Amino acid sequence: MIVMKTDATPEQTAHIIKEIKRYGLRADVSNRTHRAVIGLVGDERKIPFAHFAALPGVKEVRMVETPYKLISREYTKFFREPSEHMVIEVGSTVIGGDEPVFIAGPCAIESKEQLFKIAEGVKKAGSNILRGGVFKPRSSVHSFQGLGATDVAEEALEWLRQAGKQFEMPVVTEVRGETQVDLVAEYVDILQIGARNMYDQDLLAKVARKEKPVLFKRHFGAGIEEFLSFAEYIAAEGNKSIILCERGIIPLGKGKDYTRYTLDLASVPAIQKETYLPIIVDPSHATGRRDLIFNMSCAAIAAGASGLMIEVHYNPGEALVDGQQMITPDELREIVDACQSIHKLVRAQQK
Amino acid sequence: MIVMKTDATPEQTAHIIKEIKRYGLRADVSNRTHRAVIGLVGDERKIPFAHFAALPGVKEVRMVETPYKLISREYTKFFREPSEHMVIEVGSTVIGGDEPVFIAGPCAIESKEQLFKIAEGVKKAGSNILRGGVFKPRSSVHSFQGLGATDVAEEALEWLRQAGKQFEMPVVTEVRGETQVDLVAEYVDILQIGARNMYDQDLLAKVARKEKPVLFKRHFGAGIEEFLSFAEYIAAEGNKSIILCERGIIPLGKGKDYTRYTLDLASVPAIQKETYLPIIVDPSHATGRRDLIFNMSCAAIAAGASGLMIEVHYNPGEALVDGQQMITPDELREIVDACQSIHKLVRAQQK
Amino acid sequence: MIVMKTDATPEQTAHIIKEIKRYGLRADVSNRTHRAVIGLVGDERKIPFAHFAALPGVKEVRMVETPYKLISREYTKFFREPSEHMVIEVGSTVIGGDEPVFIAGPCAIESKEQLFKIAEGVKKAGSNILRGGVFKPRSSVHSFQGLGATDVAEEALEWLRQAGKQFEMPVVTEVRGETQVDLVAEYVDILQIGARNMYDQDLLAKVARKEKPVLFKRHFGAGIEEFLSFAEYIAAEGNKSIILCERGIIPLGKGKDYTRYTLDLASVPAIQKETYLPIIVDPSHATGRRDLIFNMSCAAIAAGASGLMIEVHYNPGEALVDGQQMITPDELREIVDACQSIHKLVRAQQK
Amino acid sequence: MIVMKTDATPEQTAHIIKEIKRYGLRADVSNRTHRAVIGLVGDERKIPFAHFAALPGVKEVRMVETPYKLISREYTKFFREPSEHMVIEVGSTVIGGDEPVFIAGPCAIESKEQLFKIAEGVKKAGSNILRGGVFKPRSSVHSFQGLGATDVAEEALEWLRQAGKQFEMPVVTEVRGETQVDLVAEYVDILQIGARNMYDQDLLAKVARKEKPVLFKRHFGAGIEEFLSFAEYIAAEGNKSIILCERGIIPLGKGKDYTRYTLDLASVPAIQKETYLPIIVDPSHATGRRDLIFNMSCAAIAAGASGLMIEVHYNPGEALVDGQQMITPDELREIVDACQSIHKLVRAQQK
Repeated sequence: MIVMKTDATPEQTAHIIKEIKRYGLRADVSNRTHRAVIGLVGDERKIPFAHFAALPGVKEVRMVETPYKLISREYTKFFREPSEHMVIEVGSTVIGGDEPVFIAGPCAIESKEQLFKIAEGVKKAGSNILRGGVFKPRSSVHSFQGLGATDVAEEALEWLRQAGKQFEMPVVTEVRGETQVDLVAEYVDILQIGARNMYDQDLLAKVARKEKPVLFKRHFGAGIEEFLSFAEYIAAEGNKSIILCERGIIPLGKGKDYTRYTLDLASVPAIQKETYLPIIVDPSHATGRRDLIFNMSCAAIAAGASGLMIEVHYNPGEALVDGQQMITPDELREIVDACQSIHKLVRAQQK
Repeated sequence: MIVMKTDATPEQTAHIIKEIKRYGLRADVSNRTHRAVIGLVGDERKIPFAHFAALPGVKEVRMVETPYKLISREYTKFFREPSEHMVIEVGSTVIGGDEPVFIAGPCAIESKEQLFKIAEGVKKAGSNILRGGVFKPRSSVHSFQGLGATDVAEEALEWLRQAGKQFEMPVVTEVRGETQVDLVAEYVDILQIGARNMYDQDLLAKVARKEKPVLFKRHFGAGIEEFLSFAEYIAAEGNKSIILCERGIIPLGKGKDYTRYTLDLASVPAIQKETYLPIIVDPSHATGRRDLIFNMSCAAIAAGASGLMIEVHYNPGEALVDGQQMITPDELREIVDACQSIHKLVRAQQK
Repeated sequence: MIVMKTDATPEQTAHIIKEIKRYGLRADVSNRTHRAVIGLVGDERKIPFAHFAALPGVKEVRMVETPYKLISREYTKFFREPSEHMVIEVGSTVIGGDEPVFIAGPCAIESKEQLFKIAEGVKKAGSNILRGGVFKPRSSVHSFQGLGATDVAEEALEWLRQAGKQFEMPVVTEVRGETQVDLVAEYVDILQIGARNMYDQDLLAKVARKEKPVLFKRHFGAGIEEFLSFAEYIAAEGNKSIILCERGIIPLGKGKDYTRYTLDLASVPAIQKETYLPIIVDPSHATGRRDLIFNMSCAAIAAGASGLMIEVHYNPGEALVDGQQMITPDELREIVDACQSIHKLVRAQQK
Repeated sequence: MIVMKTDATPEQTAHIIKEIKRYGLRADVSNRTHRAVIGLVGDERKIPFAHFAALPGVKEVRMVETPYKLISREYTKFFREPSEHMVIEVGSTVIGGDEPVFIAGPCAIESKEQLFKIAEGVKKAGSNILRGGVFKPRSSVHSFQGLGATDVAEEALEWLRQAGKQFEMPVVTEVRGETQVDLVAEYVDILQIGARNMYDQDLLAKVARKEKPVLFKRHFGAGIEEFLSFAEYIAAEGNKSIILCERGIIPLGKGKDYTRYTLDLASVPAIQKETYLPIIVDPSHATGRRDLIFNMSCAAIAAGASGLMIEVHYNPGEALVDGQQMITPDELREIVDACQSIHKLVRAQQK
């Protein structure tokens, strides 16, 4: 990392960037404060630190030890307040701000009617971002693969855009493979990388380059260091609008399953100490149980999450995918109310 | 399980119990309602159901499928309200009632002065049960093993009793081995089975027979079914005053550890659906990180826990054991305040 | 699954296939025996079984319960011997036959010289397939990403092809993303899906359609059912030349790591009971320790594996990636010798 | 650790031991070579190293970093050959020697007839130690708890002793609780600590003091460092005759279970690098599947294990406990034959 002097000229900074490229690395320039800070993308050991330290305009050259340096507080403390969170704005919705955010909608979009009916319900219940799956990652090739596998894939994306417009919510959907990125990016406000694709560095880079906020889910087999190191793949493309999402990790394989995954809520404050990126929680996939969503939503917000992602259906029993973990709009309303109070209470105490 | 008629005579019930013994099983009789319900301890398949169904006074005979039947809602719904929680009273302290309970104190008792100073602190901070370790389970034979391994073992227990009396809190300490049970039971109000001893059925049975409440911690490698099945070993001795405690399970072994264990908070509401026993959470051992205790305490209560068990020291840096996870009495005060509000809020919504 | 009569005409079979498509599913036709067996790709519940059972030429219609039906023994027992293994031939090399197969080479191709020197070494040591990584999946965007990330990506693939030709071994390399499939398929004999991409169903389908054998690695977080269910994505494209590979699963996160992953060798015979596909083992990534490779190679073959995939370097200390788990060609020689004896011994006893 | 001079007098060594006690630690003296080496049991940081280094007869004072120092190669390299394994002799049976050892017998002793019939079978099949469970650890209080829970507990132990005598095999059984130690030690040659009791330091110490070999099983939730650190509790009592046993760790909780636990065979060579103690493998409990025992036995020996512990029944379907994982004496015969060959082959190559 190269910290420039406060009186460094733009030409001096440009020269540094050129030098970095000459050594085979890329530069990540942050200008939020009165001074420029330049992060290095690539193997820092290739850089002759002494050479850079001697260049005009350079205040100091520092090694950042962590593999997720561009998104780490260790790096950003040079141009942000140490306690500051990143705030991502999508239309009039703010993620990581003073209010928790509620992303809700159907697991899979099944029809225009189903989507609009659910969109209306979640809007009334207080949610502020609409989700809906088109390209569904499925464990079995023999199961329903979402409308993305049919010839109404693009139509489904169009419905999502329309529903977002009608009910005044930004929309998010998952991009499962590289060939879907261009199409999906045309229709949605936030691009989601699902848990199973967390390690897909080619997909991450391609999605990042769309310059839209990315909702990035932790793989159920990933440690926190890995999770952040792969978020770094997005940041390394110059896109820092990353919303992290905890959605449960592999449970202990001992006897009967009471929850589908183990919701690792302690990862929420632990991650918040490492990075300024906002983190939300998905209690639907984590528990797989409708009757646990209320408690685990409250717990997630109490743990410090900036929001929730919840699957909703007006009639969970009818859903083609994951019906047993869906809640109704009325149940969502209770969660929104309780979580707003808890969020306020916890943030007040933490100041 | 044998459900007696409402007009069954005590003699008829006594006859059933005799018959059960004749088949090599034991009887667990619940009389809370107008009718007696008799649980079977042992292999139900040895019982000729038709024979029992025909005995005078018997209303019906039912098979309970789960391995933790005596503590299951499936069993107790015959003599309790389905939504009812068990309330355990220790002196004037109530566990599982309308208020969350706060168990706090040092990890290990190091001296009378240390214990009394911490006891005073946690009392002022709002805690209502005092903890203090004497017989410490340790990973290394070369580490400090607690005062239990020295010749002041009994004195340390006496200090604990005195501190409880002086600051008006019931006291709890861990019993690590069978030979310690008689001694420890003389001095404390609640006997703790630590996580590492969860599977020790001989210890469980011996502790249960002391007829004092048992604080029973989940092993870090135990599934929920196992946890409850071993709690059943305590219940099978006729002791149903069991306080369950979630304290973190084995984390994913991927890279750097950010928390010591994975706090499985979804187990709290999941367990509460299975049993009427109260469950509390220990965020200290689960996270091993002082800076995460506030958030994870709030999250535990939001998840539905009936209380918390927290390690406190007036000077965490000085503690002989686990200093990095201790908080100060002042920090405890903030937790007590936030958790009382969250508990009220969540319970209100759930009614 | 639809089992045709032995005297069913090709026209009758063709009609069935047409009918299957009409219901929105695809057909997988196996003709190895005197009768055709038609597997269904898609949701079998959409099919009116009675309707199909009544069609001319149909002997019986059966439901296959498992999510990995096309590769299951339950399905193939209708056209294969129950104990039969699948044999995949690549040039003159046979995988799943009477001899174990040894896939060896550098983790990452670093230069033409490095590759040829290692290729010569592993050939002499007895290996029969050459591996070499070009598109490397890496945990950190800041680490060396393989020559695939440079402008000599295609050249590196060309070296691999040449080395294979010169030392008479088929060659295999990993395809990490969809956009690499066409390029890589031009140069290599076997396409590898790495552990991190196991869940990437779009990549799997695209690779499968290249009609070359696929080396398919188990994700470190995948259960056996998931592993086989994703192999089914390849089979569903009509490509059954799948070589499964066990390479270690997430270890218990308790204290110091002695091995990088936990090599799940019992999965080898367990998987062999489920499917006729051959399975090999990668002890290099599983253990991450050069000093354990010999023992774990022998153990893998004793467990019933059809071969091994091992990383080799003439000077492990020099390797740019994973040097600590590389062995030398001389060490490979000892493994080949011991494993050939063990393979013979174990197979003899099992007959 | 204190290394004495070769010409140190017994008086000088005795003085050192006295000094160690004065500082609150215990001494572990090894005299196998021409010089005494004194290990410290307790917290080494309490010892003034300079003071000890200056005492007469002392060659050097060294810190041993690992928590399992008394059983580590780091410690024993001062009085053993670095590559040397420990050999434990029980009667004429040798564990850790040139031949693999086969411990076999019923999971639970059900009757004298059952035990003798199985003992005869396993002897003929080539096994050299007889096992039989009396005090059974069980997951459910409602299941059969072994004859240890009945009034023929001592008789069952007597049968075991007689069967051992008649068929000329040393015998081993599990001690589950502290109160059973004295009784069991009267009857058997080797005392077993089961997986669930691995963390029970009070039981470990009590068993160790019986001065008989201890068969010490790894807990399914224990890392290797923990496993060895608890073996150290036995060694710290002066009993180094410890036979380690790998029996499977908690599997990934993803979907259907194909094996009961994950057999961690790489732990075998990894542990062998750390300690000179012999390690054996129990494939019966690890897999829970009769049809995998042959392969996993061969794999265990190939991985470097010094022996196997296998559950055998003449009619597995009849067994009261764990019938699905039992094999017959005939199946054991095949395992013994294959494993002896593999053991020879692997050891030859490793020299």
